[in-house]
Amino acid sequence: MSKDIVKPATLPGFLELLPQDQILFNEIKDVIRKTYENYGFVPIETPLIERSEILLAKGGGETEKQIYRFTKGDTDMALRFDLTVPLARYVAQHFSELNFPFRRYHIGKVYRGEKSQRGRFREFYQCDVDIIGNGRLSVIYDAEIVSIIYSTFKNLGFGNFTIRINNRKILNGFFGSLNIEDTTEVLRAVDKLEKIGEKGVISELSKLGLSNDTSHEILKFVKIKGTNEEKLASLKALNLTSAMFKEGIEELEKVTEYAEAFGVPPANYSIDLTIARGLDYYTGTVYETFLDDYPEIGSVCSGGRYENLAEYYTTQKLPGVGVSIGLTRLFYQLKEAGLLKEDSPITFTKVLVIPMEEKFNLNAIKVANTLRANGIVSEIHFEDVKISKKLSYANNLKIPYVIFIGEEETENNKVSLKDMKSGVQKLLELEEAVKIIQEQLAQNS
Amino acid sequence: MSKDIVKPATLPGFLELLPQDQILFNEIKDVIRKTYENYGFVPIETPLIERSEILLAKGGGETEKQIYRFTKGDTDMALRFDLTVPLARYVAQHFSELNFPFRRYHIGKVYRGEKSQRGRFREFYQCDVDIIGNGRLSVIYDAEIVSIIYSTFKNLGFGNFTIRINNRKILNGFFGSLNIEDTTEVLRAVDKLEKIGEKGVISELSKLGLSNDTSHEILKFVKIKGTNEEKLASLKALNLTSAMFKEGIEELEKVTEYAEAFGVPPANYSIDLTIARGLDYYTGTVYETFLDDYPEIGSVCSGGRYENLAEYYTTQKLPGVGVSIGLTRLFYQLKEAGLLKEDSPITFTKVLVIPMEEKFNLNAIKVANTLRANGIVSEIHFEDVKISKKLSYANNLKIPYVIFIGEEETENNKVSLKDMKSGVQKLLELEEAVKIIQEQLAQNS
Repeated sequence: MSKDIVKPATLPGFLELLPQDQILFNEIKDVIRKTYENYGFVPIETPLIERSEILLAKGGGETEKQIYRFTKGDTDMALRFDLTVPLARYVAQHFSELNFPFRRYHIGKVYRGEKSQRGRFREFYQCDVDIIGNGRLSVIYDAEIVSIIYSTFKNLGFGNFTIRINNRKILNGFFGSLNIEDTTEVLRAVDKLEKIGEKGVISELSKLGLSNDTSHEILKFVKIKGTNEEKLASLKALNLTSAMFKEGIEELEKVTEYAEAFGVPPANYSIDLTIARGLDYYTGTVYETFLDDYPEIGSVCSGGRYENLAEYYTTQKLPGVGVSIGLTRLFYQLKEAGLLKEDSPITFTKVLVIPMEEKFNLNAIKVANTLRANGIVSEIHFEDVKISKKLSYANNLKIPYVIFIGEEETENNKVSLKDMKSGVQKLLELEEAVKIIQEQLAQNS
Repeated sequence: MSKDIVKPATLPGFLELLPQDQILFNEIKDVIRKTYENYGFVPIETPLIERSEILLAKGGGETEKQIYRFTKGDTDMALRFDLTVPLARYVAQHFSELNFPFRRYHIGKVYRGEKSQRGRFREFYQCDVDIIGNGRLSVIYDAEIVSIIYSTFKNLGFGNFTIRINNRKILNGFFGSLNIEDTTEVLRAVDKLEKIGEKGVISELSKLGLSNDTSHEILKFVKIKGTNEEKLASLKALNLTSAMFKEGIEELEKVTEYAEAFGVPPANYSIDLTIARGLDYYTGTVYETFLDDYPEIGSVCSGGRYENLAEYYTTQKLPGVGVSIGLTRLFYQLKEAGLLKEDSPITFTKVLVIPMEEKFNLNAIKVANTLRANGIVSEIHFEDVKISKKLSYANNLKIPYVIFIGEEETENNKVSLKDMKSGVQKLLELEEAVKIIQEQLAQNS
C-alpha cells in the first residue's frame, strides 16, 4: 500500500532546534527562571488562547494585523501576542486572591504573524518579570528591576553589557516645555536617532511642523553627555519649571542611586535620554539592555514602568514595572554571532553501556542500574548491530564513557571502562569505575 | 475618560492556576523532566502551530473535529493535538541529523476542542518520552519504558501504582484464531470491560455478529488470572498456532522479565490482557498506569510500541516505543482527590526585609544583597505602608522570616530577625542571622 508522503517541514518563522541546541536553549531558560525565582518572583502560566475581546481590548493597528485570530464554534479567540495583556487579565481576574506587591515571572511562547524575515519569528519565547502594586508602587522597585536585569545577564555569562535607563516623565516634561503637546510622533522620531542619525531626526521633526530651533533644542537635550551624575546635573541645569520634568529627574536619580545600592556595577548601567520605548504604554522609568560588543543585536532586555496595568479589565489602579527578554530572538542571534558554547552537550548521557552479545543484556542492565543509582546518567545500547556502530553512536553523541559487558567482564564480575576522549580502556570493578567516572565528571563540571 | 471594562475571564476548558498551585505544578513537571533526562533522553520542542496537512496527514474523525484549525494569509494551519505527530514530522525532517536509537522527551501543551466538561481540558500538557529506532528497535527498550514509568511515579512520591502491560500481537493473534478479521470493533468492545462489565461486553460483541461461544472464548481469554508467570503459562497453554500470537507472548515475556532486571518491583507492574489502547496505532507492547488507591482517576501514563512512526512523512521505517503523561489532567485530579501537598510554598522567598522607614531603604538593600549572595531568596518591602500591613504580606505568603531594619538596627549595625512561625524576634549580627536561617532551612528541606 503506497501512501502519499507529506513533505515534513515547519512553517516559516517558527524556530525548531536540534537536540544539542535545545539543551542549550533550555539551559539559558533555566538560568533566567532561576534568577527570577531568586528575587522572590513566582511563576504564572496563562492559556495561549484567549477571547479576542480580551487580547484586543486595547486595540491598535499592528497588533490587530499580526494576531492569530480564529473562531471555534461561536467563540472568537486568538493566540496571545505578548505576556503583558494576559498578565493584566490574570491580575484583574484573580485580584482578591493575590498578594501585592505581586511579584510574578512568566516564561512562555507568544505569536505574531509578522512578515517573515531572517531573525524575525512568528512564535517566540518571552521571559517576563514584573512587580505589580495595588494602587501604588514605590519607584525603588524600578531600581530593583535594574538589579534583576544585571543578575540575569551576569548569570548567563555576559560581562560587557549596558542597561540604558530613561524616564518618560523627563521626556514628556521637556517636550511640554517646548509646547509640543502631542509628543507621540516626536518621541517616535527621537527614538530613531541611532538608526537615522541627527539629520534624519531633524528632517522627521520638521515634517511634524517643528522649527529648526525647537528641533535643535530637542537634539541638544537627547545628546546630554557624561556620567549619570553629570547627566542628572545637566538636566537640572535646564531649569525647566515643568513639575512632570522635575518628578522624572527625581525618579531617575533614585533609580540610578538605588541601582548602585543593589550592587549593580556602574559600568553596567547608564542614563540614556534617547530611549523612549513603547510609546503609549510606559509612563515612567524605561529600560533597554545592550551587549556592548554586539550593539547590532539591539536591545536584549527591555521594559519599564506603567501606571495602570489592567485598566481594560478592572477599575482597580494597578501600577507596575517590569522587563522582558525575547529569548528566541536572543538565542538565534547569539548563535549567528558565534557566541554560544561550542562544546555544549548533545546528550545528558555520561555512560553508554554496551552488551557485547544479547546474552549479556541482563548484566548490562544491572550495571546501568548501579550507574543511575549513583547519579550517573546512563543508557544501554540494546540493538543487535556491530560494536563499531554502537561506538560511533557514542562518538556522535560525544558520550564521554563506554562500558563494555562481555564474556570476560561477566566471568570476572568486572566491567571494561573506555574513556572515549583518551581511548584508554580498563577492566575494573564496577565500584572503581563509578568512582573514576564521578571524580572525572566533577572535575570537568 | 471612562472606558468599557472587558470581563477578565479565561475560556472554558483552559486551566489557569494561582501561583501556589503553579509552583507545585512546575515542581511536578521538573521531576518528570529530570527523570527523563536521567535515562539519557534529550529534549525537543516543536512549534505549536503546524500546517494542517502535516497534522491531519493521518486523518481520522475525532481529530478532525477537535482540532483548532485556521488560516492566516494563504496558509491552512492548526494547533497540534498531541506530541506524537510533531515527533513523527520532526524525525522525518531531521532524520539525517539525528542519532538512532533516538531518545527524546517532549513536555508541551496540546490542544483539543473537546466538549467542555469537568476535568476535561482543551489545553493540556503532555509529557512524552519515546525511543525511535532506525529500521528496527529491540523489544528490550519496551522493558526500559516500564522502568521509566516506574521511576517517574516513584520520584513523584507515589507508592501504590500498577503499570499494566499487554501486547497487541497477542490480542490480534488470538482474534485471528477465532476468525475475527476486523478486530478493531471487537477490541473496542473488550476495552470497555471495566466500564460496562461482562454482560455489556457480550451484548456489544453479539451486536458485532459474534456467537455466544466466541464471546465467551474472548471473555475467558481476557480474564486469565494469576501472577505474570501464570498468565504467560495460561496463554501458552492455549496452544494457538498463530505466529503473531506466539510472537506476542515471547515479547510480553521478555518485557516482564527485563522489567524486573531494570529493578521495577513486581508489585508495580502486571500483565493485563484487557488493555488494548489506541486501536489502529500500537502494534506491540501497550501500557497503562493506575494509582491503586484511586482507580477512578483512570490511566495516568499510557503508551506503547508502534511499528512505523513517520509513515506519512518519510519512506524510512521508524519503529518506536513510548509513553505519555497527561499532566494537566493528572494535576487537576490529584488536587480534586486531595492528594497534593497542602503545605506547598506560596513563594520562593525565605526572608522579607522590612525597612522601618524610607531612610533605612539603603541599609535594607545591603542586607538583602548579603542574603541573596548566601543563597537565601529574599525580597524587600519598599511600600510606604504600615508595618502591620507588611507583616500580613509575609504571613499571607507564608514567608518564614522577616528582617526589620530600623533605628536601633542601623545604629548597632545589626538586624532584627523574626521567625514568623515561633514569633520569636532577636537582634543579631547579619552573619549570625544568615547562619541561623541557612541551618533552619536546611533542616526543614
